[in-house]
Amino acid sequence: MTTHGTVRPGGRTARTRAAVREATLAELVAHGYQGLTVEGVAARSGVHKTTLYRRWGNVEGLIADALELASGEPWPIPDTGTIDGDLRALAREVLIGFTDPQAGPVATAFVAAAVQNPAAGRALHTFFRARHEQSAPIVDRAIARGELPAGTDSVEVVRVAIAPLYFRLFVTGEPIDETVADRAATAALTAARAGVFVTSPPPEPASS
Amino acid sequence: MTTHGTVRPGGRTARTRAAVREATLAELVAHGYQGLTVEGVAARSGVHKTTLYRRWGNVEGLIADALELASGEPWPIPDTGTIDGDLRALAREVLIGFTDPQAGPVATAFVAAAVQNPAAGRALHTFFRARHEQSAPIVDRAIARGELPAGTDSVEVVRVAIAPLYFRLFVTGEPIDETVADRAATAALTAARAGVFVTSPPPEPASS
Repeated sequence: MTTHGTVRPGGRTARTRAAVREATLAELVAHGYQGLTVEGVAARSGVHKTTLYRRWGNVEGLIADALELASGEPWPIPDTGTIDGDLRALAREVLIGFTDPQAGPVATAFVAAAVQNPAAGRALHTFFRARHEQSAPIVDRAIARGELPAGTDSVEVVRVAIAPLYFRLFVTGEPIDETVADRAATAALTAARAGVFVTSPPPEPASS
Repeated sequence: MTTHGTVRPGGRTARTRAAVREATLAELVAHGYQGLTVEGVAARSGVHKTTLYRRWGNVEGLIADALELASGEPWPIPDTGTIDGDLRALAREVLIGFTDPQAGPVATAFVAAAVQNPAAGRALHTFFRARHEQSAPIVDRAIARGELPAGTDSVEVVRVAIAPLYFRLFVTGEPIDETVADRAATAALTAARAGVFVTSPPPEPASS
């Protein structure tokens, strides 16, 4: 999906886009969302600011584009051999993603931008749809191994395993650590084993 | 806790503050966070905008003050007689709080402001500390009734019961409804019954 200009892989437009994206991420790390400016991205990327304004519109457009590219990147989903190990690893990945000195400010800025700007919001939602789809095999494999009941909603298990981390980060402002991550994963797993996330069978078609 | 001027209950300053707070909430309902302006609050409250700028600083200051007052308001916590009923009622309250045509835009604006502004963030975090403390009796009563194991972290049960709603609202942009709310409450309860939220005993002091 391309929203800005014509992108040919390896072409000049693609290289410009990659440079702008890298500069956007670097500026986010350096200054946070509040300090992100089109001028800063122009200076860092070497792309003239009039080009940035014309093709990306504003800082939210720059963030949305960086997120859109990030959505397409392959993501190493945990495969530890057990659902317990996989869900814990997944929650730890979220923890690390937001507390890492390099990645944390970028991830935080993405969510902050999504709350403030509809285009960034749509990009973040697309990003999570992709991540959810990529995470589903964790649960599907557990069902195949007999660890979880058939019919378990794979995405819902993943959501519940990581939601407490986001709740603390972006709503209550409470700290997150490995204990919080492990407990969230264990709570989701316990509920999943008990069948809480088994989706109902589809309703019978109405007789006509 | 007072951060702006001298507030005497029933005094002129308190009345001004109440009027400004009501106007802030009404403007949030009418225009959302992005459309909230000091001028709009001035027009609606009848308080001159130079007074607003002097005492509240900006729109984030207005939001932070409205939240600070909201934190002190008594909140009807569910008391249905069972932990299952109470946690479901709690999750439903969150659902209603964000989907109600009047309250929803205000609640959403509070979280959005907190992400963007440190003062609003501190006010939101204080608000949740108060809400968490007010919710703890739900779990404490369940322990007393023998529904949950002794030593269960009451606030953590509440967090996990409502976190999936906030995760959808402010991160993934996925819809929320009664099914989502009920499932989140049931997942938290299932984990709580299994002892997932029993806090470890404090570590032994190191021998010296």
